[in-house]
Amino acid sequence: MLGDWLGPKAAALETRGLTRRLRPRVAGEDLIDLAGNDYLGLTHDPRVIEAAADALRIWGTGSTASRLVSGTTSLHEELEDELAAYAGQESALLFSSGYLANLGVVTALGGPGTLLVSDEHVHASLIDAGRLARSRVEVVPHNDVDAMSKVLAERNEQYAVMLTESVFSVLSDEAPLADLAAAARAHDAVLLVDEAHGLGVTGDGHGSVHAAGQAGLDHVIVTMTLSKAMASQGGVVLGPAVLREHLINRSRPFIYDTALNPAACAAALAALRVLQSEPDRPAAIHRATAHLADAFDVPHPAGPVVSLPMPGPHQTVRAADLCRADGVRVGSFRPPSVPDNISRLRLTANAGLTSNDLDRAAEVIAAAVAQVY
Amino acid sequence: MLGDWLGPKAAALETRGLTRRLRPRVAGEDLIDLAGNDYLGLTHDPRVIEAAADALRIWGTGSTASRLVSGTTSLHEELEDELAAYAGQESALLFSSGYLANLGVVTALGGPGTLLVSDEHVHASLIDAGRLARSRVEVVPHNDVDAMSKVLAERNEQYAVMLTESVFSVLSDEAPLADLAAAARAHDAVLLVDEAHGLGVTGDGHGSVHAAGQAGLDHVIVTMTLSKAMASQGGVVLGPAVLREHLINRSRPFIYDTALNPAACAAALAALRVLQSEPDRPAAIHRATAHLADAFDVPHPAGPVVSLPMPGPHQTVRAADLCRADGVRVGSFRPPSVPDNISRLRLTANAGLTSNDLDRAAEVIAAAVAQVY
Ligand SMILES: Cc1ncc(COP(=O)(O)O)c(C=O)c1O
Ligand SMILES: Cc1ncc(COP(=O)(O)O)c(C=O)c1O
Repeated sequence: MLGDWLGPKAAALETRGLTRRLRPRVAGEDLIDLAGNDYLGLTHDPRVIEAAADALRIWGTGSTASRLVSGTTSLHEELEDELAAYAGQESALLFSSGYLANLGVVTALGGPGTLLVSDEHVHASLIDAGRLARSRVEVVPHNDVDAMSKVLAERNEQYAVMLTESVFSVLSDEAPLADLAAAARAHDAVLLVDEAHGLGVTGDGHGSVHAAGQAGLDHVIVTMTLSKAMASQGGVVLGPAVLREHLINRSRPFIYDTALNPAACAAALAALRVLQSEPDRPAAIHRATAHLADAFDVPHPAGPVVSLPMPGPHQTVRAADLCRADGVRVGSFRPPSVPDNISRLRLTANAGLTSNDLDRAAEVIAAAVAQVY
Repeated sequence: MLGDWLGPKAAALETRGLTRRLRPRVAGEDLIDLAGNDYLGLTHDPRVIEAAADALRIWGTGSTASRLVSGTTSLHEELEDELAAYAGQESALLFSSGYLANLGVVTALGGPGTLLVSDEHVHASLIDAGRLARSRVEVVPHNDVDAMSKVLAERNEQYAVMLTESVFSVLSDEAPLADLAAAARAHDAVLLVDEAHGLGVTGDGHGSVHAAGQAGLDHVIVTMTLSKAMASQGGVVLGPAVLREHLINRSRPFIYDTALNPAACAAALAALRVLQSEPDRPAAIHRATAHLADAFDVPHPAGPVVSLPMPGPHQTVRAADLCRADGVRVGSFRPPSVPDNISRLRLTANAGLTSNDLDRAAEVIAAAVAQVY
C-alpha cells in the first residue's frame, strides 16, 4: 500500500536529483561549523552543559506530563521569568519547540473572527499556524507595511494579527518593526514577531523588538526558539500576562503536549545567564557576520546569516559537499526552503569562531563555489 | 489591545470556575506520583540520567539545526534503528515531540486526494493533524470498525488513512487493531496507530500493534512519544522505509523544526536498552494498574491508566488538591480534556511503585473522593 503510493513519488524526486538525504554527524568531528544556528557559541559551553547535567539529576530525564498535569517544574517558571525580563516583556510561556509555540499562539488567537496578515517570507511554522487557525489569511509582499495596512483597514473581522519575523531566517534581513507596530496600533491589530534569529543576537542580545522600543506593549507578541542562540531546545511566547493566561487555557499545542524536559530548560537558562554576564557576545556574532560578508563582498546583513546565491540546486549541494570534504560545514538551501526560489549557501555566524576560522572557512567556500560554477 | 480582547474571556472562565492554573513542582518533593506518564519508572534511573549527561558532553546541549541541515547526529540514527527493531518495524524517524510526529506524518500523507477517517477519541494532536492536512476528515464512533469500513468503502478519494490509538490516553481502553488492519487492507487504506500509551507498556513492551501481529506491514504506521515510557522527550514515526524517505522529503514539521536535542535521544535510547535488559518491567506496570483498579473496584484497563469518573469538574479538582495535600499526585481531567465529557481522576501506573505506595495512594484517593461527593 505505502510502497505503491509513495514509491513512485520517491522515484520521481530521485530522477530530478532532488532527493534529500540525512547525513549524520559523527562524534568528535572537527569541522568549522557555519551551518548550525548556535549563534552565541554556547552549545558546548561547560557552564551550560553542567547546568543541564545537574537538572537531569534533580528533575530526571523527562518532565513526565503536560504542563497543566504535572509537567511544570519551578525551573520552567524560573526560565520563563528570566526570558521575559531579558526581552522586556511582561510574561513568557514555554512550549516544547518554536514550531509548536507559533502554532500555539496563532491558533489560540485565530478563528473566524480574526484576520491573519502574513509577510510572504515567514517561516513554515507560521504558515502552518495560519492554516490551522481557521482564520482568513492574507499574504502580503515582503516587508510591505502599506500592503499590511491596507488589508487591515479593509477587513471585516473584529480582530487581526500581523505575522512577521524580526530577522528572517534565510535572507537575514530585518522587518520594519516600528512601522509595523505603528500600523498595528492604528488599525487595532496585534503584531506577532518571530524572533528566532533575533533574540540573543540583535539589539545587544535583547532582540529587535526591544531595540525598536516595541517590547512590553499591549499589542505586540514575540515568539522565539531556544534551539538557536539559547543553545538548547524549546519555544517561547512572550507578551502581556493576559496572553499567557489565555494560552494556558486555550492553546491546544500547549495543553496537550508534554512539557519541555528539565535539562533543556536548564541549558537555556544557563545560556541566558552567560549572555547576561558576557554582554559582548552578540557583538562577536556581528563581527563574525561582517567578516564573512566582506570575504564574499556582499552587504552586511542585519542578522547572523550570510546568504550566497548559487546558480542552481545541484551546484549548491555540490559546493556544500566540497566544503565539508575540506573541513567546513555550510547550509545548502534549495526550493522550497528559500523564500525567493534562489538556491543558496547559508553561512551562519557564531560568537565562538575565531578570525582564523573565518578566514579558513571563507577560503574553502570560495574555492568550492569557484569549482561548481 | 490584547487586554480588551482576552481580558473578558479570562473573566468569563474565572466566573465559571474553569480557569486552569499551572502548579510548579519544587525540587525534592516527596509525593507518590500517579499523574505523570513515566510508565516504566525510568525518569530518575541513574543509567538513563548518566547516558543523557554523557551525550551533553559529547554532542553539546542542543542539536543546533534541523535534521536536514546539520541537526542529525549518529545518535539520532542509532535511536531510530533500535526503536524500529524493538517495535518490529522497518524504519523510524524522530521528531521533536509526539505532537509534531502526528502532525508531520498526517500532513505528509494528506491532501485533497486522501480521506482521513478518525476515531472520535483520538488525541488532540491527531485532530489538529487532520485539520492541517487539507483532507476531508470523517470522524466515526469510538472503536467502530464497521463505521470506519463504511466510510472507506464509500469514498471518492484514491487514498485513505485511518487514525486511531492503540491504548487511548484517558480511558485506557484498546482499539481492535487486528480488525482495523484487516479493514484497512480490504479497503486499500493505511492504518495509523498512535502508540503513545502502548509502546513500552503493552505487548510485553513491544506495543499493541506488535502484539496484534500487525507490525512491519506495508499498510500500518505507528507513532509514539518518547516522553512517557521512554522517560524523555520527542516523537517517532515507525513504518516502511519508503514512508521514512517520504517524510524526510515532504513533512514540513520534520524539515523545518530543529532536531531533537542529543541528550533527549540518549535518554530514550538508554531507557529502551534498560527495557530490553529488564523485560519484566511492563508486567510490573500491569500489576500496578490491576492493584489500583482493584482498590477502586473498577475493571482492569488494557493500558496503564485507571480512570475514576467524578460527579463534576469542581469535585475533580478539589479531590486532586486533597490528594496532593496528603502526599499523592493524581491527574484531574475535565472537559475538554476528556473524550466523553465526564470529569475524572486519572491515575497512572508506574513500574517503580511499590505495593505499599499503591496501598497508601489508594487510601488517600478514596478518602479525598469520599470528602468531595
Ligand atoms: C523563524 C523560525 N521560526 C520558528 C522556528 C522553529 O523553531 P524550532 O526549531 O524550535 O521548532 C525556526 C527554526 O527552526 C525559525 O527559523
Ligand atoms: C495519544 C497521544 N498522542 C500524542 C501525544 C503527544 O506527545 P508529546 O507530548 O510528545 O507531544 C500524547 C501526549 O502527550 C498522547 O497522549
